[in-house]
Amino acid sequence: MKNNGMVKEIPSRTERFSDWYTAIVLKAELADYAPVRGCMVIRPYGYALWENMKERLDRRFKATGHTNAYFPMLIPEGLLKKEAEHVEGFAPQVAWVTHGGDNKLTERFALRPTSEAIINTMYAKWVKSYRDLPVLINQWCNIVRWEKATRLFLRTMEFLWQEGHTLHRTQDEAQEEARRILDIYVDFVENDLAIPVLSGLKPESEKFPGALTTYTIEAMMPDGQALQAGTSHNLGQHFSEAFDIRFLDKDNIEKRPWGTSWGVSTRLIGGLIMTHGDDRGLFLPPRVAPIQAVIVPILFGKNDDMVLAKCHDALKALEGLRIRLDDRKNQTAGWKFNQYEMMGVPVRIEIGPKDVKKDEVVLVPRDGSAKRSVKFTEIMSELEKLLDQIQNNMLEQARQHLAQMTSEASSIEEFKKKLIAKPGFIRVHWCGSQKCEDKLIDETKTTPRVMVLDEQGKTKGKCICCGKETDTVIYYARTY
Amino acid sequence: MKNNGMVKEIPSRTERFSDWYTAIVLKAELADYAPVRGCMVIRPYGYALWENMKERLDRRFKATGHTNAYFPMLIPEGLLKKEAEHVEGFAPQVAWVTHGGDNKLTERFALRPTSEAIINTMYAKWVKSYRDLPVLINQWCNIVRWEKATRLFLRTMEFLWQEGHTLHRTQDEAQEEARRILDIYVDFVENDLAIPVLSGLKPESEKFPGALTTYTIEAMMPDGQALQAGTSHNLGQHFSEAFDIRFLDKDNIEKRPWGTSWGVSTRLIGGLIMTHGDDRGLFLPPRVAPIQAVIVPILFGKNDDMVLAKCHDALKALEGLRIRLDDRKNQTAGWKFNQYEMMGVPVRIEIGPKDVKKDEVVLVPRDGSAKRSVKFTEIMSELEKLLDQIQNNMLEQARQHLAQMTSEASSIEEFKKKLIAKPGFIRVHWCGSQKCEDKLIDETKTTPRVMVLDEQGKTKGKCICCGKETDTVIYYARTY
Repeated sequence: MKNNGMVKEIPSRTERFSDWYTAIVLKAELADYAPVRGCMVIRPYGYALWENMKERLDRRFKATGHTNAYFPMLIPEGLLKKEAEHVEGFAPQVAWVTHGGDNKLTERFALRPTSEAIINTMYAKWVKSYRDLPVLINQWCNIVRWEKATRLFLRTMEFLWQEGHTLHRTQDEAQEEARRILDIYVDFVENDLAIPVLSGLKPESEKFPGALTTYTIEAMMPDGQALQAGTSHNLGQHFSEAFDIRFLDKDNIEKRPWGTSWGVSTRLIGGLIMTHGDDRGLFLPPRVAPIQAVIVPILFGKNDDMVLAKCHDALKALEGLRIRLDDRKNQTAGWKFNQYEMMGVPVRIEIGPKDVKKDEVVLVPRDGSAKRSVKFTEIMSELEKLLDQIQNNMLEQARQHLAQMTSEASSIEEFKKKLIAKPGFIRVHWCGSQKCEDKLIDETKTTPRVMVLDEQGKTKGKCICCGKETDTVIYYARTY
Repeated sequence: MKNNGMVKEIPSRTERFSDWYTAIVLKAELADYAPVRGCMVIRPYGYALWENMKERLDRRFKATGHTNAYFPMLIPEGLLKKEAEHVEGFAPQVAWVTHGGDNKLTERFALRPTSEAIINTMYAKWVKSYRDLPVLINQWCNIVRWEKATRLFLRTMEFLWQEGHTLHRTQDEAQEEARRILDIYVDFVENDLAIPVLSGLKPESEKFPGALTTYTIEAMMPDGQALQAGTSHNLGQHFSEAFDIRFLDKDNIEKRPWGTSWGVSTRLIGGLIMTHGDDRGLFLPPRVAPIQAVIVPILFGKNDDMVLAKCHDALKALEGLRIRLDDRKNQTAGWKFNQYEMMGVPVRIEIGPKDVKKDEVVLVPRDGSAKRSVKFTEIMSELEKLLDQIQNNMLEQARQHLAQMTSEASSIEEFKKKLIAKPGFIRVHWCGSQKCEDKLIDETKTTPRVMVLDEQGKTKGKCICCGKETDTVIYYARTY
């Protein structure tokens, strides 16, 4: 039954990873190509996933004192140019509005590639006193970046994200905020999406244009490429200088506030798909799955009414969870099994005449572990238990993969060999110089991803390039 | 106490309505002007209101089988031109993207002024069989329309909205959907926003470009101007023809589906402000108010700890409602009373030393009705009861205003007199001809707003312009 119908149309994940990925996105109806270069449509199933992700992340932001707001998408060219590094970083990717109706505009508008420029302009107006601080604002919105090569969810010209922009009275508070958000991202991505990450600092060359320091979470995909899954920037006073934000402090002295910004996007959905999917299709973690369990009646033509009635009872008993009952008669149970496996629904609930007679239902986990019959009266508690188990197993399994895909190297030769033998993260000691970084990038065609915070200053070693003694360690990888 | 502090800075609502409106929006920090012509920033308090509105409307859409999705904001010029009436209606308002990075594009992209063109292009790809129908998709997104005159919330170049786009097997089903959504809008706007509306059909001249029929809900503002608060369009087969959408029906014959589209926007917030505000500021209906009640401790310098402890107990006892405790010590209780009245918080909860001793709290409704002491143990039930009462009273009061602002006229002279004596809706009999409509518009500087469905064909009368016998009645008004 596993090899019939639509499932065999999915390319092998191990042999043709990239084709497999695209096939899953399209077949599970997460997204589709739009008739606009580099853009995609997020279809209802994919958007429901995004809504669940949003809801769980938004809850964390609100619990830490943040509120949402909405700023204009159009940014006058003059504003974008105020922070020099920032505009330099983003200018090649900006889409420009030049006409309104039939009229040519006197100043071009950028479609926001990120919103520091417009938001800090408003903050300059709003922040006058230390009593106005901290400002803890987040925005859920669309972003446009003119990308050359695009890929569904991973890199599209338009994408959805959240961007937090905060201002603080002191440098320490801004630093705490940047770290607090990093922790929220790790918690969300690991515990809700079951994607383990390395978290820490970006090296200078990879930080956000305009940031003092950039924190990042980096995930490892099964094809050995790293995925930057979220970033949190300590902006120092760069933007409060560029946009002339000042406040009167408690000591009656005028000062500049300290800023942060941070974001995650629909790209995370790409990470989810790649981390958990298999040759049967998608596999979604229960905490964010749009359908946590699907009830499939097993019909034989007799006692069907009894079975269907029981299915409806089950649907009712499971109120509060996200359950679908698929009682369509024009599809076989086998077809449905394949269909919902492909869609990554964590649990299938089978109910046939024998089950009804025993007052039981059969729970079939998507992860391939054993199916189990449970008493109908215990359907809710058993399903909740199973969903928790699946969630935990998914993270555990992904952690094992991450460990397997991480190696160390102490010479460029060893680095290159490891990269072929065991593609993934390669951990190296690094003296911190740009020259050594450039050399390693050039010779290995990888990029520096992250300096894991807990690991710095703890082990002495020799810089992989120049051999200088150092206690800085950094992970390299190929990347999306 | 009512006339001190910031409150007296609000212009009189009756004397300077337009200034009053702008002052409220800015002072209550619902929104602010952006450094982009015609655009605004929705500030956290205003956005929290929008989130509550979204949540309650979205729940209604989902309960009727709709799902959310996301389509690109950029629409190639060629797609926009496919439906002739549609492009003609929107072309003057379109913002055009002509450059990506440093490159001039070969085809311009419109920023979506509405999404029929891009969505129906995708539907043509997705819909093949009657089994694919109905398609019931909604999108929450930003919209750009190049407006000449703009006003905070009421008309801005960029705004937020939801747009539903559905396809159906039969004409009847599409018609039912357009009506179902109209009913949802009436229910939401009247019961959650406490804004009474006239609901019904638009005349030909006012319908959506590309629609067969347009349903509308129209509210009446205190200055006598009507506000179009939401529309639902039966699109017939216009878009399925223009975008070549076809499906194989049950009878094995290829047919075109029937469409609808419908939307409400952040403009509703403008309606809320105008309908319920007064000289003391904003007044928000409890169901959507970001803060449903504010707890203000009454501090005298002694027993303050006891009072503050009780305030925290109250906050805890009210968990599940949206409550703020304002225990700042650098502001007086009087200042806070004014502040939260201005912000439109429906109920103030005062707790002073005497209240603590009696184990009571004082509930003060924003609507000016009597304050009441309630037992602390009953704080939750009493507050919920009071919030319901306030919600109902707000609608009742607004209904009375609507009735007072509606008159009838049987001649153009009478129409003009009524419009001066009692600005608002003017109900007239109309023969249905464009010529008579043009004449009435020209002579009165009003526009036809809505033909209330229940009223058609019930009373005979003479067309206000040509005197011809008719049973069609229509409401005219000045409009935003």
